[in-house]
Amino acid sequence: MNSHDARRPLNLAQQLIRDHLVEGEMTPGSEIALRMDQALLQDVLGTLVMLELEAMGLDRVHTDPSVQYIDHGLVQADHLNAETYLFLKSACERFGVWYSGPGNGISHPVHMEQFGVPGQSIVGCDSHTTAAGSLGMLAIGAGGIEVATAMAGEPLYLTMPEVWGIRLEGRLPDWVSAKDAVLELLRRHGVAGGKDTIIEYHGPGLAHLSAMDRHVLANMGTEMGATATVFPSDEETRRFLAARGREGDWKPLAAEPGCTYDREETLDLSGLVPLIALPSSPDRVVPVSEVAGEPLHQAYIGSSGNPGYRDFAVVAEMVRGRTVAEGVSLDINPSSRQVLTTLIREGYLADLVASGARLHQTGCNGCIGMGQAPAAGLNSLRTVPRNFPGRSGTREDSVFLCSPETAAASALAGVIADPRTLDMAYPRILEPERMVVNRELFTAPLPPAEARLRPLQKTDNTPALPDLPPLPDTLEVPVLLVTGDNVSTDDIMPAGQRVMPYWSSVYASAPFTFEAVDPDYARRAEASRELGGHAIVGGRNYGQGSSRENAALVPRYLGLQVVVAQSFARIHWQNLVCFGALPLTFESERDARRLEQGDSLVIRDLHAQLAAGPDLTAEVVGKGTFRLHHGLSGRQRELLAAGGVINLLRARQGEASAAR
Amino acid sequence: MNSHDARRPLNLAQQLIRDHLVEGEMTPGSEIALRMDQALLQDVLGTLVMLELEAMGLDRVHTDPSVQYIDHGLVQADHLNAETYLFLKSACERFGVWYSGPGNGISHPVHMEQFGVPGQSIVGCDSHTTAAGSLGMLAIGAGGIEVATAMAGEPLYLTMPEVWGIRLEGRLPDWVSAKDAVLELLRRHGVAGGKDTIIEYHGPGLAHLSAMDRHVLANMGTEMGATATVFPSDEETRRFLAARGREGDWKPLAAEPGCTYDREETLDLSGLVPLIALPSSPDRVVPVSEVAGEPLHQAYIGSSGNPGYRDFAVVAEMVRGRTVAEGVSLDINPSSRQVLTTLIREGYLADLVASGARLHQTGCNGCIGMGQAPAAGLNSLRTVPRNFPGRSGTREDSVFLCSPETAAASALAGVIADPRTLDMAYPRILEPERMVVNRELFTAPLPPAEARLRPLQKTDNTPALPDLPPLPDTLEVPVLLVTGDNVSTDDIMPAGQRVMPYWSSVYASAPFTFEAVDPDYARRAEASRELGGHAIVGGRNYGQGSSRENAALVPRYLGLQVVVAQSFARIHWQNLVCFGALPLTFESERDARRLEQGDSLVIRDLHAQLAAGPDLTAEVVGKGTFRLHHGLSGRQRELLAAGGVINLLRARQGEASAAR
Repeated sequence: MNSHDARRPLNLAQQLIRDHLVEGEMTPGSEIALRMDQALLQDVLGTLVMLELEAMGLDRVHTDPSVQYIDHGLVQADHLNAETYLFLKSACERFGVWYSGPGNGISHPVHMEQFGVPGQSIVGCDSHTTAAGSLGMLAIGAGGIEVATAMAGEPLYLTMPEVWGIRLEGRLPDWVSAKDAVLELLRRHGVAGGKDTIIEYHGPGLAHLSAMDRHVLANMGTEMGATATVFPSDEETRRFLAARGREGDWKPLAAEPGCTYDREETLDLSGLVPLIALPSSPDRVVPVSEVAGEPLHQAYIGSSGNPGYRDFAVVAEMVRGRTVAEGVSLDINPSSRQVLTTLIREGYLADLVASGARLHQTGCNGCIGMGQAPAAGLNSLRTVPRNFPGRSGTREDSVFLCSPETAAASALAGVIADPRTLDMAYPRILEPERMVVNRELFTAPLPPAEARLRPLQKTDNTPALPDLPPLPDTLEVPVLLVTGDNVSTDDIMPAGQRVMPYWSSVYASAPFTFEAVDPDYARRAEASRELGGHAIVGGRNYGQGSSRENAALVPRYLGLQVVVAQSFARIHWQNLVCFGALPLTFESERDARRLEQGDSLVIRDLHAQLAAGPDLTAEVVGKGTFRLHHGLSGRQRELLAAGGVINLLRARQGEASAAR
Repeated sequence: MNSHDARRPLNLAQQLIRDHLVEGEMTPGSEIALRMDQALLQDVLGTLVMLELEAMGLDRVHTDPSVQYIDHGLVQADHLNAETYLFLKSACERFGVWYSGPGNGISHPVHMEQFGVPGQSIVGCDSHTTAAGSLGMLAIGAGGIEVATAMAGEPLYLTMPEVWGIRLEGRLPDWVSAKDAVLELLRRHGVAGGKDTIIEYHGPGLAHLSAMDRHVLANMGTEMGATATVFPSDEETRRFLAARGREGDWKPLAAEPGCTYDREETLDLSGLVPLIALPSSPDRVVPVSEVAGEPLHQAYIGSSGNPGYRDFAVVAEMVRGRTVAEGVSLDINPSSRQVLTTLIREGYLADLVASGARLHQTGCNGCIGMGQAPAAGLNSLRTVPRNFPGRSGTREDSVFLCSPETAAASALAGVIADPRTLDMAYPRILEPERMVVNRELFTAPLPPAEARLRPLQKTDNTPALPDLPPLPDTLEVPVLLVTGDNVSTDDIMPAGQRVMPYWSSVYASAPFTFEAVDPDYARRAEASRELGGHAIVGGRNYGQGSSRENAALVPRYLGLQVVVAQSFARIHWQNLVCFGALPLTFESERDARRLEQGDSLVIRDLHAQLAAGPDLTAEVVGKGTFRLHHGLSGRQRELLAAGGVINLLRARQGEASAAR
């Protein structure tokens, strides 16, 4: 099935890909197709996925398990969130999907606790799905439409990444934990440093990292733009599963001795110090000591960026018998029901609450701007994975990323503080041998015969998806927006309590598109729809961050035909193609700076040009011709010609019906 | 100081009034002035109070303690809530007020735990301030402006209420608790049944009601429109304070033997059954058995309507080892940090979370539409005090009020269920001898010299109050709105996450006025401002519910000059007068039905008519003359002539400055 030389020892990422390869060559840069064993959905993006399954006419999902989590939209400021839960639960019943209701916890740690299996593959409509790599899974975040396609039994298409071996040596010093390790990698490589790679950790340093510590690294591999992060399945993995009554799901997995990596790096854990990412990018990393003494407004504990029992227990040990500094809000956000109940049992929750901390509901919460938004301009230290501007819910926020140790030490000091300056012995936490397990609170799929009788509980806020027209052969569109570098999907489609409840409706969420970048974009774009659409010109790493497919689908609905950028984040590039928008890159950086808002971009003989090779010629009225690059596979060109994967699958479904 | 015959034995309400009487006669219906010992503020209404203290030029509050609680605006969807906390904390520092930050809990139970003292008086800018009557306090909810006035050392003016003695006999049966007792009174008397009364409980049935059980009854006296609810201070009161390390604050208080009441009633606790208030009024009460089997969507535990340790512990006992029915959201909202930490210590929190319940942050939360909003039209059972339409955050809600026992039994059954049908022995909860106390998490007032140096941390969302013009001598205004009966302050000024963060700004909250009643009212009213203002015609019990002063202040800012209604809720009537709007009642019910939107109301020689007696004549163009009643005291006429108490106090302050 592929040309890989069977005698050459494989690293673990290569083994996992080999075991799931359906199509293509394991050569970096070429397109591969991978069989997906499992699927993960969260609520604010799962709604669109379920609508896509409905549009495909799917009877029952093929991935097993597929799990729908309710973890994002938990505020319930009005009727919309609760009605979304009802819609999603009905869709789970209809299509054969597990349902994890509100209160069970954040998808990534909960999936690891309840469903993750070493050696399996998983795709999820959340960029941090990569966290399951901590268990030795091949775990990939993707746009919802790709997840829907995988749930329908189709493979996941991917550009074969390079495998980036990071050898861990030494052992984390006191007061330094997994978050500091991944912040060090972000410091070295930046938010695009892992693009088109799978990060594979190996080496002796692994022995001192628990499975949940590894989750922290695998989770934030996404912040480096990595396709996936892979860890071996070893004794720590076995211990993690055994503590949750799932030792039977364990098997050992490791790189083969003598294997090589496309990129190699060493990280000496023993040389690390407490680190912190300054506002407002995860790669603005400096030692905590450099900003110690700066004023503090909030210390936020939780999210899939530091979801482990340990991450809460260490804070509890630090604050026990003390009181949080006056004027500082110490916000505790349990990551899962399992973590919460075990923290109660072990006495840690009592310590936290008695210290003056605020205990919030179990879920994503403030990490995605759903509550706990800080005052404008005041410093918030968070153990979350991202600090893009405004993501906290406060437009003019000042969010730092750090370890639980640094957040807790700062909450006690009342200013940003290096935890090593705290006058106490470092509390090393041992995870209990048995966690509180609560599998009965997850709703299993119905048997097929029963499932077929279940209707979807649709509402005005879950309307059918719009029809998207195919790309014309002559594109002649105005440039409606020119952005800077590292535009995130948060910039394109805002999150937060105000907007997220509407994500299930393309029409209701459209007015919010690019709101913080250019509040008039949505209006101009809407006006362009009937006039042949429009183009966007992006900078480097366009579409980084969250995998939300509506960051492609909604602009596309608003008439977006083509994005020309210096480079793209992988998932967003894929999402654009899936919805029939053309992602192009500039051949020369000089050209990239010549395009302005209002320019008219013309591409003639588009489909012939795409078929002829990886490059094409465009004209900008009054500025001459430009050479642009597309890098589309034949399959992707087919998608674009059809106007996106929904049109394609709908047509195939029609053919299948006609053939019956 | 009053003409009361000293030899006649006094009931407890009369004793408390006598002990605080500054002015007036203790004859029902006459105006009295009462010295206020303590003051209570919550955040969404406290902001305006602090702005009023600033406008008065106050140096330091006279009430001791005055306590500012942060319990309403806890969602923090954007920067506004956190900035409100900073403003309020700075105002506490400036004016000598205790500060209880977010996470400490709901004002009413927390005040009882930490600050309530038998025999003292307290006024609070929250209608449920009455709950402190459970400790033998004279506890009154009022508009913020009246609280500000009291904090400035002025007395609280009040119409001397009748005292309504309710003799409790017997003992609550298994599965029936304090909430059922107060629902029975609401069933008998309706939401206006307690108007112009102080409810005083007495009799042998008291011996079996803990201080927190009494809180439930005192809290919901407000739902009957009562001015206050008073309980004796007895052995249960002593036990409550002792468990919180405050036995020294206890003293015995009781009605004098042989005293009488203006109204008398008997409630036999032993004859009660589980009761439930149907949507959407607290007095639509029926036995739970009448609606048993109806579908259930949500069971909500918490709020000042059932805030006791017992109210959570009994639910925990009921769900221990069981699982909440699939599809039902059991939402647990701890009422105070003390209750939460003690529930953790005693193992109850673990039972709740393990059963599938969702644990939310400590505070008011869904009771005032701040999260946990149900799906439209689906049944939500709540232990909260109110179920006005839309108060849950969902406009088309279906909220029932019931005891924790009924809510928990229903959550387990998956349908509305009478708790007596649950197959287990009734768990009678004993409150622990020592609760977890956390007084160090309350910020004490600064010494005066230090306080004077503290500036207020103001923001765009805490602008200065508007100038309000005096009432003209000829009123000629259009009727812009005609409402039905029992319009609540929730109808006038909506709550919920969408609106409440703006309550601190009259200007920003104005567009939401009467939104659900008539979404165009605010626009018409705004247009009326420059044209001499407008009138509103109300039905019976106009302005019931929450004490929010902005339900008077904001319409007044929008040009409201006069409200003519069949009857008013006490606090709202007082608020209208304080802000210079004229509240009038119809002499005949027939007249009340003749006025329509668009009518033009004319009152000539207004001030002379007000001074001449309790009635006046108005003309409605094309409909002839109407006799209307005002019932204003000389002091109140003075307020109206000045354009409200702010103008009056500002002028006095000017005189005081000039005299120096």
